Amino acid sequence: MMFSKGLEGVVAAHTAISHVDGNKGKLLYRGYDAGELARTKSFEEVAYLLLNGELPSNQQLETFTFELVKKRKLLSALDNVITSLPKELEIMDVLRTCISCLNPQTNWPPTKEEAIHLIALFPTIIAAWIRYENGEKPIKPDQTLGHVENYLYMINGEIPTNAHSSALTAYLILTMEHGMNASTFAARVVSSTESDLPSAICGALGAMKGPLHGGAPTGVLQLLDDVTSHAEGPEKLLRQKLERGEKLMGFGHRVYKTTDPRASALRDVLSSSGGEDHTLSKAVEVEKTATLLLAEYKPGRALHVNVEYYAATVMDALSFKSEWFTPTFCVSRVVGWCAHVLEQAEDNRIFRPDQEYIGVRER
Amino acid sequence: MMFSKGLEGVVAAHTAISHVDGNKGKLLYRGYDAGELARTKSFEEVAYLLLNGELPSNQQLETFTFELVKKRKLLSALDNVITSLPKELEIMDVLRTCISCLNPQTNWPPTKEEAIHLIALFPTIIAAWIRYENGEKPIKPDQTLGHVENYLYMINGEIPTNAHSSALTAYLILTMEHGMNASTFAARVVSSTESDLPSAICGALGAMKGPLHGGAPTGVLQLLDDVTSHAEGPEKLLRQKLERGEKLMGFGHRVYKTTDPRASALRDVLSSSGGEDHTLSKAVEVEKTATLLLAEYKPGRALHVNVEYYAATVMDALSFKSEWFTPTFCVSRVVGWCAHVLEQAEDNRIFRPDQEYIGVRER
Repeated sequence: MMFSKGLEGVVAAHTAISHVDGNKGKLLYRGYDAGELARTKSFEEVAYLLLNGELPSNQQLETFTFELVKKRKLLSALDNVITSLPKELEIMDVLRTCISCLNPQTNWPPTKEEAIHLIALFPTIIAAWIRYENGEKPIKPDQTLGHVENYLYMINGEIPTNAHSSALTAYLILTMEHGMNASTFAARVVSSTESDLPSAICGALGAMKGPLHGGAPTGVLQLLDDVTSHAEGPEKLLRQKLERGEKLMGFGHRVYKTTDPRASALRDVLSSSGGEDHTLSKAVEVEKTATLLLAEYKPGRALHVNVEYYAATVMDALSFKSEWFTPTFCVSRVVGWCAHVLEQAEDNRIFRPDQEYIGVRER
Repeated sequence: MMFSKGLEGVVAAHTAISHVDGNKGKLLYRGYDAGELARTKSFEEVAYLLLNGELPSNQQLETFTFELVKKRKLLSALDNVITSLPKELEIMDVLRTCISCLNPQTNWPPTKEEAIHLIALFPTIIAAWIRYENGEKPIKPDQTLGHVENYLYMINGEIPTNAHSSALTAYLILTMEHGMNASTFAARVVSSTESDLPSAICGALGAMKGPLHGGAPTGVLQLLDDVTSHAEGPEKLLRQKLERGEKLMGFGHRVYKTTDPRASALRDVLSSSGGEDHTLSKAVEVEKTATLLLAEYKPGRALHVNVEYYAATVMDALSFKSEWFTPTFCVSRVVGWCAHVLEQAEDNRIFRPDQEYIGVRER
């Protein structure tokens, strides 16, 4: 029987949600270029697209936005649970614990309404915990703000600048969905037993916690920090690193053999909205130098900038703590997870692969 | 690229933990016949075997049992969470919520100590919730009782009879592990991102919630009930059912093409320890009649009794409510889940299968 470690090269599902073409550096959401969506659309529009297969009409967008706003509120039952949790918990565990006790009324099939509820709740739970952790009271969601602006507002208590909200919007759109990664796959496996949507999302959140998957781009921040504090400028430092055989964090990707399309879109949005930002201009400069040096030191390896690189830049510009990175990633990826669970339910078969026994014979 | 729906026939892992031979009707745990283990060993011995690969010496068993007893206690942090949960929650959701907020101090690799902690906690959490739901205070674990006796004690407040504890022990041993089922697979996928053990177990619990996987054997209980209340005895009723084309619940298995070895072992244990029990003698009689009738009505289909059939009999003898069935199954299966996560960590690669894009072209 066929065996491929980590199921590499094995097709686990047929999907119409997204397409990753690593050689061409293309990422499509429902046939649309994800970079183009990030440059021109709102969080709500792209979430609608992923869940429904088409971009919304004005009327559809209004209804969808209204539903999201309505479901943002932290119900008192959930607030009771949050305040009962040990203060030293990681945000990812808090988020999963809250989703775990939502008490779904139906198991199967999962519905778009449930998906909207989960997407709406993620920012509220994360922001509430960030405030509690800091000894502050949670800030109630503002119904007049969009999904992304409201997330920043609930964390900081201030309406965000345009530069900040557009940077975060682009990041969130570009990370909403990326094929059969471990968390999405976990969600589909859990769901395939005809379990409920929150159960599938709890599985995904656990996978996302693992450093091989949802790890924070702290390496990139360290690199940018090193470059900034180095007296003789980026090129000297980067050459030193490469000559010592160090990896440059934020460069190279398992799938993308050319520039990660998410990185280029994010760079564009950051350049147009936050041009005056020092972190950003530094990041663009370092990227250029690093790409040239990588071609010189590692010819033929095609090491280009990846999404982590500009994601770190966004997080830095927003003054996000590194513990907030992975949960913020989930604010967007929950859309992809829900889209996959809904797709799985359309033509479900329980995941039940084989195992090969390599143990002792009967004894 | 290869595609097999639900990954049927695809080997997802090499394992030394268990071997299921459906044609021969064999189930091995670490090379030992599971039925034989259920007839002769304790919960603690078999859990040790699955986690460690060998049966324990007396000294090893003593240490292992001591560790399990020590970790049984419901810490006050967890009690705070449990009492904060909405009363209408399913036990499976309560169990997952508690595991979700355990705040693991390390992520990777998972350890046997952590596994012991989770195995020890499951009965305590379930029993505490059953008591709370019923408006009663939880009963503190009794350190002098074995794992299974203590579970029944924490639910009922009484030391169980030998017949009850040996029936439940056999059931729990026989359901500890069964290869690459959906919950075990979900645990391995989550764990493969180098996430923590509680995250993997939360994924598994979500999969187990799904009716295609951990569904309660209510159909079997209904069948036994129908038979008992039928005036003219089992044969008449079973013939009616078969002639109406109804499925007989508790007969036939996807993998086992002969008697499910877990069913025969459970029948043996029940016969020797609870011979006076009416439910049991009725179940044995119905099994005999049903097997003969199935051979008559569905020749060549090889429909034999499966584990659900005698599992339902055990649950009935213990007066367990149907909502307790799936959580009780988890009291045993958490051992298999932990063994698989530990095995995954020994030679890990992240699960990241492919998907095949069947959506619209770029637009």
